[in-house]
Amino acid sequence: VKVALLGVGLIGGSIGLAARRRVEAHVVGYDRDANALVRAIELGAIDEAAPGLAEVVDGADFVFVATPVGASIETARLALGAAGEECVVSDVGSTKRQIAEDISDPRFVGGHPLAGAETAGVGNAREDLFDGAVWYLTPAEPGVEPAARGIEASESGVGVSPPNAESSGARLERLVSLIEGLGAHPLAIGADAHDRLMASVSHLPHVFANVLVAQATRAARAVWSEQVAGEDGALGAGPSFRDATRVAGANTAIWTDIYMSNRDLLTDALDTAIEELGSVREKLAVADAEGLAAWNEQARIAREQLRRAGLASGS
Amino acid sequence: VKVALLGVGLIGGSIGLAARRRVEAHVVGYDRDANALVRAIELGAIDEAAPGLAEVVDGADFVFVATPVGASIETARLALGAAGEECVVSDVGSTKRQIAEDISDPRFVGGHPLAGAETAGVGNAREDLFDGAVWYLTPAEPGVEPAARGIEASESGVGVSPPNAESSGARLERLVSLIEGLGAHPLAIGADAHDRLMASVSHLPHVFANVLVAQATRAARAVWSEQVAGEDGALGAGPSFRDATRVAGANTAIWTDIYMSNRDLLTDALDTAIEELGSVREKLAVADAEGLAAWNEQARIAREQLRRAGLASGS
Repeated sequence: VKVALLGVGLIGGSIGLAARRRVEAHVVGYDRDANALVRAIELGAIDEAAPGLAEVVDGADFVFVATPVGASIETARLALGAAGEECVVSDVGSTKRQIAEDISDPRFVGGHPLAGAETAGVGNAREDLFDGAVWYLTPAEPGVEPAARGIEASESGVGVSPPNAESSGARLERLVSLIEGLGAHPLAIGADAHDRLMASVSHLPHVFANVLVAQATRAARAVWSEQVAGEDGALGAGPSFRDATRVAGANTAIWTDIYMSNRDLLTDALDTAIEELGSVREKLAVADAEGLAAWNEQARIAREQLRRAGLASGS
Repeated sequence: VKVALLGVGLIGGSIGLAARRRVEAHVVGYDRDANALVRAIELGAIDEAAPGLAEVVDGADFVFVATPVGASIETARLALGAAGEECVVSDVGSTKRQIAEDISDPRFVGGHPLAGAETAGVGNAREDLFDGAVWYLTPAEPGVEPAARGIEASESGVGVSPPNAESSGARLERLVSLIEGLGAHPLAIGADAHDRLMASVSHLPHVFANVLVAQATRAARAVWSEQVAGEDGALGAGPSFRDATRVAGANTAIWTDIYMSNRDLLTDALDTAIEELGSVREKLAVADAEGLAAWNEQARIAREQLRRAGLASGS
């Protein structure tokens, strides 16, 4: 099986490592950054580099568009122009509505692996980057779209088609098998639903992380100016702060693209969040201990529901 | 050395385990919950249980008030009434202004170890709970208050006093030595500065975590209602969501106390955070990509500064 990578950064490189070592794929890569290609070969993320997009796609069974979100639609379009009839072209972008609207080709299936947003570059690529991670797929045709549950290539019964006339469903099945081979859990979802969910469980947490570090910096400055210690004197915060701010200020180019590509739904999520924060603020202002306790209990119950749905952690 | 614990929950129990195993202290515990005392003996967190507060404090070199914040002032007062002249009484409450205002006794030094807020009970106590954690101390007398840097018992030169007339500084030194023996990093800070800092690096992150799970639940419900899958169908979120919501809905009794005890400063922090979120919302609404990129860069720089100050993680 031949896998083509358009873009060999953190995600492309990790797909390459896992595809070569776990499913014995022949992996060919292309990247506008020649240094990244050299590094990808050194690290074993690709078998060979191709001189251009057409060459890397030629004869590929799978093409992964692993560029930043801003370039993915144009790259996917070029890839489909060069790809064969039986090829499956997918992408790894963090938002899925725009590409679903712009690309209507039965060979294209949008994708989004939930992994690795806080580092970048093929130097950070890992064979196990996707282990246990959900990998969303947003197939175009509602008819072949399984429910928002795990889809097993062998058990789904989705789009089974006669040989030599591969349907979108059969292409999806092949892609699902490959992604499982990479260690991830493929999960089909509508592009709209995906972007709405990501606004709340990915983009909003990143905004909150940025706001938290700004707020903490202001507080630390106030402490430093009150204390004898100079600026940057050591202070301490608990693990909740470290965890909540791990992704603060993550790769600006990538995240500006993500925020921009989902700005309507992220704005909605922010409006609701600001409203809830205002309500908490009022409870604090009037010393409504019962209201705060009830609100915290709701959060406990919500977290438990999210844990059962695989969204929150188990502890 | 005799260590008395008033309250043998997660924090008291962990102090007991570390004190017994690491500094060979004789540890005596008292708790209104007799089952917790039995369990603490079984787990090796205390050498013996005392029948009442006066008995446990009698002859102790150190007393730790490890009750919930709501009970700590009254308990500390009772402890000081029963404690000897050379005894150091401390507490472990998450806010420090109130107890600093209410207790003016040279034997009292407020404390706050940054550890373990998301579990509770002596059953979760661990000898290594404080390893590498900052343990804030809020000594009452400004004259003996070191800068907001690590204070080493042997190197600080703080409050050196003649024998047989122990000063507050000498008491602080003894407490610092003990806390270092437990594995933590003692850090002296003013009570006001402490509470202002915690509003931003602990209480606000907890509020954000609660808001995030509420928001994610709403988004998940919308997805479930659009998809074929029923309520609670599996979905996926990335590690940033799991990390940011690990403390959502944490122990309601404890956290209602904490929010209430710091409500003025937490309200201030919320006001600033809401203002910043509103500004991000406006940038999204008008598609200000440059503004979003500049804001994200500021967060990156802020996180780097916090990392150097020991507040954010290194990765």
